[in-house]
Amino acid sequence: MTLTRVLLSSTLIAVSASVTFASELRDDAKDAFAPLPSTIPAVKDNPITPAKIDLGKALFFDPRMSASGVFSCNSCHNLATGGDDNMPTSIGHGWQKGPRNSPTVLNSVFNEAQFWDGRAADLAEQAKGPVQAGVEMANTPDNVIATLNSMPQYVDWFKASFPEEADPVTFDNFAKAIEAYEATLTTPAPFDAWMNGNDDALNADQLAGLSLFMDKGCASCHNGVNLGGNGYYPFGLIEKPGADILPEGDKGRFAVTDTADDEYVFRAAPLRNIDQTAPYFHSGKVWDLKVAVQIMAESQLGEELTETEADQIVAFLGSLTGDLPEVTYPVLPAETASTPRPTGEVK
Amino acid sequence: MTLTRVLLSSTLIAVSASVTFASELRDDAKDAFAPLPSTIPAVKDNPITPAKIDLGKALFFDPRMSASGVFSCNSCHNLATGGDDNMPTSIGHGWQKGPRNSPTVLNSVFNEAQFWDGRAADLAEQAKGPVQAGVEMANTPDNVIATLNSMPQYVDWFKASFPEEADPVTFDNFAKAIEAYEATLTTPAPFDAWMNGNDDALNADQLAGLSLFMDKGCASCHNGVNLGGNGYYPFGLIEKPGADILPEGDKGRFAVTDTADDEYVFRAAPLRNIDQTAPYFHSGKVWDLKVAVQIMAESQLGEELTETEADQIVAFLGSLTGDLPEVTYPVLPAETASTPRPTGEVK
Repeated sequence: MTLTRVLLSSTLIAVSASVTFASELRDDAKDAFAPLPSTIPAVKDNPITPAKIDLGKALFFDPRMSASGVFSCNSCHNLATGGDDNMPTSIGHGWQKGPRNSPTVLNSVFNEAQFWDGRAADLAEQAKGPVQAGVEMANTPDNVIATLNSMPQYVDWFKASFPEEADPVTFDNFAKAIEAYEATLTTPAPFDAWMNGNDDALNADQLAGLSLFMDKGCASCHNGVNLGGNGYYPFGLIEKPGADILPEGDKGRFAVTDTADDEYVFRAAPLRNIDQTAPYFHSGKVWDLKVAVQIMAESQLGEELTETEADQIVAFLGSLTGDLPEVTYPVLPAETASTPRPTGEVK
Repeated sequence: MTLTRVLLSSTLIAVSASVTFASELRDDAKDAFAPLPSTIPAVKDNPITPAKIDLGKALFFDPRMSASGVFSCNSCHNLATGGDDNMPTSIGHGWQKGPRNSPTVLNSVFNEAQFWDGRAADLAEQAKGPVQAGVEMANTPDNVIATLNSMPQYVDWFKASFPEEADPVTFDNFAKAIEAYEATLTTPAPFDAWMNGNDDALNADQLAGLSLFMDKGCASCHNGVNLGGNGYYPFGLIEKPGADILPEGDKGRFAVTDTADDEYVFRAAPLRNIDQTAPYFHSGKVWDLKVAVQIMAESQLGEELTETEADQIVAFLGSLTGDLPEVTYPVLPAETASTPRPTGEVK
């Protein structure tokens, strides 16, 4: 056997081993995760139509949905910056600070429930929250509806979106239209391409990170389509992080269920586009993704990651950053004589 | 001559008279106004390239250009709502109120100077103002540059936009890129189509309004491409409006020139898209365009318009509302470990 043939033969074995590894890794990954679907997902009791998507987009971007006229949904869930606002906690009406970090709207349709404590069953229920929250948009359903009814173009859009209803301009339909739009905000990523069979979509570090993500136990909580967003776990399962990261006053899901077991329990954060949505955790106190990964490993798994391991997991998380469908900025109806006037007053 | 022929002949005379009227009206209009150009206008000392337009769009929509991370240029000059913010005066950093109504960014490249008092010679100079104003974005040039330099994608975009410069990430270039983007925000309207020879672009009321607009004297100040934006006049030339509309504390261009003649002098408002940009005047105190027209007629011209005249002028002003080029919402670079953190603190 010549040297060339020996080398060739070793290479073949290496390639073959690599193919086996990739195939096994993909099998394991398919048990834990799922790629994004190729079409807009259906949502419960809310048939999605092009008219409803367009209406929802207008509402999502319309700052007149807030009492002050300053904030739209897009203010804190900015599609230009990963679907969130890059702040520890959002600034809202009267320059008040919200209690928790704004989660990304991207792919949020795949979360089992909405908000850090899962208190809203779906995106339609979620959409009603910030509009009314005194520290966020500080509006009322009546004022939202009066605002919408004052603009004939909006009334027409509601009619086209809910053609079977006699009086379609309702707060429920406002929320449903926003839900329909948000369902379109999905971001296929390299990870999806890899899950779908494209071996070249992830590099060696990302593959190693994926392997670690499953072996270390991250995937026990961060799994499914969104690698999270589908279960509730105590923050500090093994070791509670400091009060700077886990403030004592925010007991998480306890406020929803009133059950002692739910103290400091939060929804596992969905991880798609995570490298676009610093700062991290419900408190928004950690800006560096690698540090966030290390804190999670320690507090939830009792694992101290090596630098290389942490870097590889961060590399893998980068493969979850995808492409938003092109968003054409809407042109909104002009206010009329009967449009309620904006007010920055803090009650 | 049969009755039919008499009628036909009268009709021909009427049509002929109407054609003559339209033709004369257009000749008069061409003396006073100009249609929008069909291409992006050149701006002084700032060659406009596709790379620079894209960079400027990113900067225009990026809330991280403000100290708090809450406000972008688009917050107060919202392209979804006529290029302004639909408020009497804008709400800015720390929930402070600005002193004057936010003017539309649309077609602003055609204004002779920027701001209600014309204190900025061009859009690049204007762009530097709100970023630094304590009641608006409350940022500093140094912090803007540090923010931009912390994101490699932005550095690349600056290099592509200013390829001849060794160190292109500067506050001057930040402003020039925004100016380049804003120069693209022009809105061809039915009035332009009519000026360009399409007789059907304006209806009878709009034509009557245009005729009144010139005959009554509105066009003495509101002329040129933007029907305004190109000269300075005392608000209350004939009769001062009440202090609710013309607050005593704001002496307009006097603050710029320190000349007694410039007390309560303001730039004539450019009128394109005016029916999308209520409320009106530098004080933003009038929400109804017809009322604004009546106030202008009385205070500037000493004219009391009939209801029909005011309605026709409003109809004509509606013909100045045009179509914005489709705006694809930008996807902005993610912040990095070295990106300065947002702060809502009020100094």
